[in-house]
Amino acid sequence: MICMLLDKEFDAVILANGQYPTHETPVRVLRRAKYLLCCDGAAVKHLGKGRVPDAVVGDLDSLPIEVKSVFADKLHHDPDQNSNDLTKAIMFCRKNGFKSVAIIGATGLREDHTIGNVALMVSYAQQGMEVVMVTDTGVLLPMLSSGVVQSFEGQQVSLFSFDTQTKLTTQNLKYPLTNATLDMWWQGTLNESLGNQFSLEFAPGPLVVYSLFEDCR
Amino acid sequence: MICMLLDKEFDAVILANGQYPTHETPVRVLRRAKYLLCCDGAAVKHLGKGRVPDAVVGDLDSLPIEVKSVFADKLHHDPDQNSNDLTKAIMFCRKNGFKSVAIIGATGLREDHTIGNVALMVSYAQQGMEVVMVTDTGVLLPMLSSGVVQSFEGQQVSLFSFDTQTKLTTQNLKYPLTNATLDMWWQGTLNESLGNQFSLEFAPGPLVVYSLFEDCR
Repeated sequence: MICMLLDKEFDAVILANGQYPTHETPVRVLRRAKYLLCCDGAAVKHLGKGRVPDAVVGDLDSLPIEVKSVFADKLHHDPDQNSNDLTKAIMFCRKNGFKSVAIIGATGLREDHTIGNVALMVSYAQQGMEVVMVTDTGVLLPMLSSGVVQSFEGQQVSLFSFDTQTKLTTQNLKYPLTNATLDMWWQGTLNESLGNQFSLEFAPGPLVVYSLFEDCR
Repeated sequence: MICMLLDKEFDAVILANGQYPTHETPVRVLRRAKYLLCCDGAAVKHLGKGRVPDAVVGDLDSLPIEVKSVFADKLHHDPDQNSNDLTKAIMFCRKNGFKSVAIIGATGLREDHTIGNVALMVSYAQQGMEVVMVTDTGVLLPMLSSGVVQSFEGQQVSLFSFDTQTKLTTQNLKYPLTNATLDMWWQGTLNESLGNQFSLEFAPGPLVVYSLFEDCR
């Protein structure tokens, strides 16, 4: 599932305003984007990096005038103070029929944004979006129900549970879990795949699965 | 509490193997360390940066031979496969009577390490350690029971709850919470202090409080 997601063509790619990507995988996803949205300030970071965004979404307050003029026909003002720019970009995708979305640059600076954005992916999935986050070190995937995740032998994998009542059983991971709860965020971290896939059976969920890139070990 | 923690002299400072700090605040904490521990690979990143560590803790497998020879009298081999190097460093502090500890460089690369390390601080606090994490953007502080956090007006603050049963009431935050649960990780993020302190009343807890540096807004 994860590997396929990186090879496939997403309906849209969102560049968020966290750390600008340097790893070849998120950079490639960004470059190949069929439709590229920048969250507000991310448009500034992306200026002159090649692929021109198709839309810039956010409250646009922080965009310098010269950037606004460059992207004049691409600006989508959304002043909602109750959601962050990543969520605004996802809502823009939903409204425009883009279901499968890769999120780039949503981690790596403010730790509270990193943690919040990882969890927000679950909300997006619950609204019917197929989202995946591609970072400089790996891939984050929200799972609402039990399933199989594509992998490679030796791939480092971390599992995050949001409901301390969720019971989880794994297959094909080095440190198997059987009907386990993950009471603290670190309890599902630093596991390892034993082959080209592993399975997660859980209820009620949701989970987020982190899989490390091979060259980031 | 947070401001005081940054001004005070910690018993020890741990440099973990995440992103090496660049912000002046963690760099200053590192430079002024009374006792400096490096987690394994972090010793390599720290080589030639000025302050020589007093100890290097971890399984030491990943240290190049030339680094091992530089730090020969400072190496503390801990091969425990059931805890990560940050936890080994904390246990080293505990064993050596260092109670008040600042953690630097524990976030910013692998997102699963970032999330796991933030949560591990709670475990360290539960073992009687006074820990604080100083990152390139702010400060993370575990709280086991209700209390007051020093702040400044307009400081951005995020609250993370680990138990979905925890009820939380805030005073002096822009978006007040009253007997609220934080069911998803993003629900307590992006709040703002209204003055030089705010208070958090909660049970059973624990919480982690993130406070953004003034120059990282």
